This record gives sequence, structure tokens and C-alpha cells, in this order.
Amino acid sequence: MRTRLGRQTVALERPSVILSRAAIGGRQEGEGPLASYFDHLSEDSFFGEKTWEKGESAMQKLALSKALEKGSLTPEDLDYILAGDLLNQCIGTSFGLRDFHIPFYGLYGACSTMGESMALGSLLIAGGFARRVGAMTSSHFCTAERQYRMPVPYGSQRTPTAQWTATASGCVVLGAEGQGPRITAVTCGKIVDKGVTDANNMGAAMAPAAYDTLSAHFAATGTGPKDYDLVITGDLGVLGHQIVGDLFAQDGVDMSANYQDCGMLLYDIQKQDMHAGASGCGCSASVLCGYLLGQMEEGHLKRILFAPTGALLSPTSSFQGESIPAICHALTIEK
Amino acid sequence: MRTRLGRQTVALERPSVILSRAAIGGRQEGEGPLASYFDHLSEDSFFGEKTWEKGESAMQKLALSKALEKGSLTPEDLDYILAGDLLNQCIGTSFGLRDFHIPFYGLYGACSTMGESMALGSLLIAGGFARRVGAMTSSHFCTAERQYRMPVPYGSQRTPTAQWTATASGCVVLGAEGQGPRITAVTCGKIVDKGVTDANNMGAAMAPAAYDTLSAHFAATGTGPKDYDLVITGDLGVLGHQIVGDLFAQDGVDMSANYQDCGMLLYDIQKQDMHAGASGCGCSASVLCGYLLGQMEEGHLKRILFAPTGALLSPTSSFQGESIPAICHALTIEK
Repeated sequence: MRTRLGRQTVALERPSVILSRAAIGGRQEGEGPLASYFDHLSEDSFFGEKTWEKGESAMQKLALSKALEKGSLTPEDLDYILAGDLLNQCIGTSFGLRDFHIPFYGLYGACSTMGESMALGSLLIAGGFARRVGAMTSSHFCTAERQYRMPVPYGSQRTPTAQWTATASGCVVLGAEGQGPRITAVTCGKIVDKGVTDANNMGAAMAPAAYDTLSAHFAATGTGPKDYDLVITGDLGVLGHQIVGDLFAQDGVDMSANYQDCGMLLYDIQKQDMHAGASGCGCSASVLCGYLLGQMEEGHLKRILFAPTGALLSPTSSFQGESIPAICHALTIEK
Repeated sequence: MRTRLGRQTVALERPSVILSRAAIGGRQEGEGPLASYFDHLSEDSFFGEKTWEKGESAMQKLALSKALEKGSLTPEDLDYILAGDLLNQCIGTSFGLRDFHIPFYGLYGACSTMGESMALGSLLIAGGFARRVGAMTSSHFCTAERQYRMPVPYGSQRTPTAQWTATASGCVVLGAEGQGPRITAVTCGKIVDKGVTDANNMGAAMAPAAYDTLSAHFAATGTGPKDYDLVITGDLGVLGHQIVGDLFAQDGVDMSANYQDCGMLLYDIQKQDMHAGASGCGCSASVLCGYLLGQMEEGHLKRILFAPTGALLSPTSSFQGESIPAICHALTIEK
């Protein structure tokens, strides 16, 4: 098993290539600093549909269609698609993808889904089981608010630790060969639950999972933060980002130079009044598929460690007094 | 890519071995004809916990613990665990597995999850990325009723086409080597939606997906129903089973000899008044991990085609007038 480094990490002898990518966003994403990296920004939060849930599906449809179009590919060119989302029973995905007739493995990794789908997709390609795989996810502010918190029209007040669920979708097409950035190593996360119960402070709940997976990835690959142009978590926001830095500092590892979080980049946090930053599956997915891979294409980044985090709670588990289990999957992406 | 047969099927040159298995059930499962094949049957629907949701997590914990114990394994012996369930955000799984600290890929395949987890687990092993993988799922009558339909104490009447969600969990440990039945081919399903909107007739909604995947599997592997001792779908129940037979009959394929459905086997449908039969992720999972693999062990079955089906709807999608997308993943298991 020469490609396995420790228990969680696989170094891909046959790296998968990111052949194509697409990022879709809504109005807030269009008003943020990364707007120019999106392929499509919709002023209409319904994306032309009658409900927000159908709108989220439309957004996934759009993301996959764009990624295929940009790669001059058809749905038939994909051997598998791996995807999931935050909605109960992942309906954003099942309804978004049903018309494409692509063999489908459904995932639930909460906001870590972009990492999970790319990791499993890379392993399917590296194992010789697929030539091309689609990996994608989405989130939508309005569907998430009414499912996890309060219907948007109630106008509930948000705590300072709260984050703003991105209305966004990201999709990559991975290939066994071709031109593009390569996924050279993947680390599968473990469920980590340090007892945080505040569902309005996801950053604190997820930070220990990010620390756990990044530590495992560094140890397995013999690398440290300095070996990457950027180490970037998914949607920890301002607080979670700080906690990850603190946890590594306790180990004597300095993350200050090149550690960022997608949740701190998607919006102008002050100007757009986004409290602790962005969150949602679509946050890390769209920041990767827009800004980060764009920066790699433009030559500003050569090697990044992409590590989206997910909080594996539900409103029911919180009502029942449970703490918040979290997970983080990490991938090395290099040019 | 010599192991790929067509777009959906992989013939595993390095078959994965089912090293261990466990089936857990509740009271109704204990009163059914397959009771003796379960490893543990609980009279207490709460499995010692304070809520049914926590009970479902306890059931998954028990299933994994039993499977590890029966295989003389520890959690550290598993490189990955692949699992999911029906609860919103799959909390049966995330809370059930959080104490095991095993690298985790979360899945959402509704009632097809046992097939999906075993398929992906087999591919991870066949690719050389894991030595041992846990694959599992669960469902619980009381958690499913209050989430999908009505809280149990309301005593709502059930339509004749309705099925009974199994309170059950199944877990297998797959290995790269060792003794046991082998998974020799896996077929990944596509999302199929033929426009059925009746959420009380899941069999009809899922049957076309089962037909689609089984057809693809037969075509890719050059086999037909007669090449298996048993072709068995997951939880189509009496109606869905009939529809699959009818669809194949239209193609001139006779399924009457050896085609069964786990949903028709788990309970004594008449005596236990189960309407169209059993359903839920735990149905096919526990029937496989108890009865079917037991029958293989006893030498009554040598080669089966296991094809669990899932309905990828949510209460929200039904309220919004949507039809029911479905999926089915299939595996050849042989001694």
C-alpha cells in the first residue's frame, strides 16, 4: 500500500487534474471582493424558480453545466458525480443533478463536502475506476436560514459569532489526464467533538476538526505550513480561524504567515456586516472554484492546502442538548 | 481502465472480502421471520437513550462495535468508515460514530446507503487505499415517522401502499484479504425520476431506479438473473417488487425465479400488518448483514446481486409538489 501515508492520508501517485471549474453566486457574493472570479452571479435569490430550495437546485445545475461547458465536455464524459449539500436529505443535489443521468454517489459532509467530493473523486481516478469525475456542492442563505435557524422574513437578530451562509455553488471536473492544477494528496478527516454546543458559533465547533486534519496531513506528508503558498480552511470564519492558529501555536507551529479561511475572504466582512464571516458548503466551494483556482491559473499560487470543515449537527441534535461533532477533509493542490 | 465495464460498473480484480458483519434490530424485527439472524434485538425502542434520535445513534454504535468484536478487530484496524442514514444531516451516523475516531466519509444515499457504502468501500480497497473499511447505515421507525410523516403518538392511519421503516442497523467490515464472501463487481446508480409524487408509495417511485441499475449491471457483466442464486433489491416492498418484475418482463427478462426484496422478507407482512412491507436504510442493511450473509455462510446461497434502492426526496420537496428522484446501487457478492 505504498501510496498510503499513515492512516488518513493518501499521496496520489496518479494525481487527478482539475480540468474545469465553475463558481456560481448570489447578490451578496456579487458585492464581495471575490465577485470577479465567479462565472455567474444572480441578482434573483430564486434563480428563476418558485422556491429557494428549487433555486438551490437550479444553482447546482448551473454550476455543473458551466463546468462542463468550460471544459468542452458533456454529461456523458463524466463517469461519476460526487455531491451533496446542507438541505435535509440533500435535495439541492438530488433535484439539481437528476436530469444529467450521471452515475452518482451522494455525500453528506456538511460544509466539508467540497473537500470530501474532491478527495473521493481523486481516489476513484487514482484507482483507475474513472476517467473523469464531477465534484460539487452548494448552499443557499435562505434555505439554510429557514431550516437551521429562522425563516428569513422573521428578521431575527444575529449574534456576533454568527456566520452568513453563502448562496453559492462550486463544481470541478477532475480527470485522469489533461492540463490543470493537480490534486497530489488527500487526507480524510475524523469526527472531532470538543463539546461546543453553541450552534451560533460554528467556527469554535469546527476549529478542532481543522486542527486535527491539518496536523495529520502535515505529519503524514512531512510538510508544514511553510511548504504551501496558502493553507486555507473552509468556513471557520474569524473566530474559528483564530482558534486554529492558537491550537497550532501551542504545538510551536506558526500559522500566521500563510493561513487563511474562505469564510474570511468571500465577503467584505465589515462593509457587508457579515459578523464572523461566511459559511455553508458553497463558501469554500465557490472560493476554491473561483478565486483560489483563478489565483493558481494566474500564477499567484503554486501549491495550496485546501481544508474545508463541516459541522455534523442538526437542529434536532441541538434541541436535544447535544454538542457539535465536526469534520475536515484536506487536499494538496499544486500546479 | 481494464476493470471498468461500461460507465457504471467496475469488476473488481481485487475483490474485497466481507470480514465481519453485524445486524441490530428492534421489537418488530424480533417478531419477524429473520429474527434469529440478528446479533442483537432490543425491546427498548430508545436503546437505553432519552430520545429516539439518540437511540438510533446508539444502534449504529452497537452495530459497529459488534462487527468489530465478531471480527476480533479494534476501531484502529479500520482505515475508513463510510456511513450515512435518513435523519436530517445524518445525525444517526455522526453522533453514533464520533467516539470511534475512524477516518470518516459521510454518505447520503437514503435507503441505498448500504449499497453505496459497500461499493465505495470496495473501490477504496481495490484501489489500494485501504486495508479495511467499515460500511454501515441505520434507520429507526420512530425517528423516521416524526421526520417524514407524523409523530407516532398521533396514530395516523397508513395507506395500503405504505411501508414500515425498519428499526435496524447493519454493518460490515470489508478487507483487502482474509476469509469471507467477496464483493466482485459494483454498479453505481444514476438518479431516476419517473414522475411519481406519492410519498406513501415509495416502491413505485424507486422501482424504475432498481430496474435501471440492475439492467446496467446485467449488461455490463454479461449476466442475467439466472446467474445469481438471488437478485435482491433493498426496500421496494410488495408493489415495487412487482413493478421491477413487470419492467423486466417487457424486456423479455424473467425475474420470477429468484428475485426478492428485503422489504418483503424482514417482517411477516400479513401477521405483523406491515402493508407493503419494510423500508428504511436499516431494512436492506440488516437483512444483508443478518439473513443474506448468514445464508451464504450456511452454504444456501453462493452468488447474490444485492441492490438497495433509495428515494432522494424530503418532506420539503414533496410539499413543493416535486416528484421523487430515486437511486439504486448494486453489488455482486459471492463465496
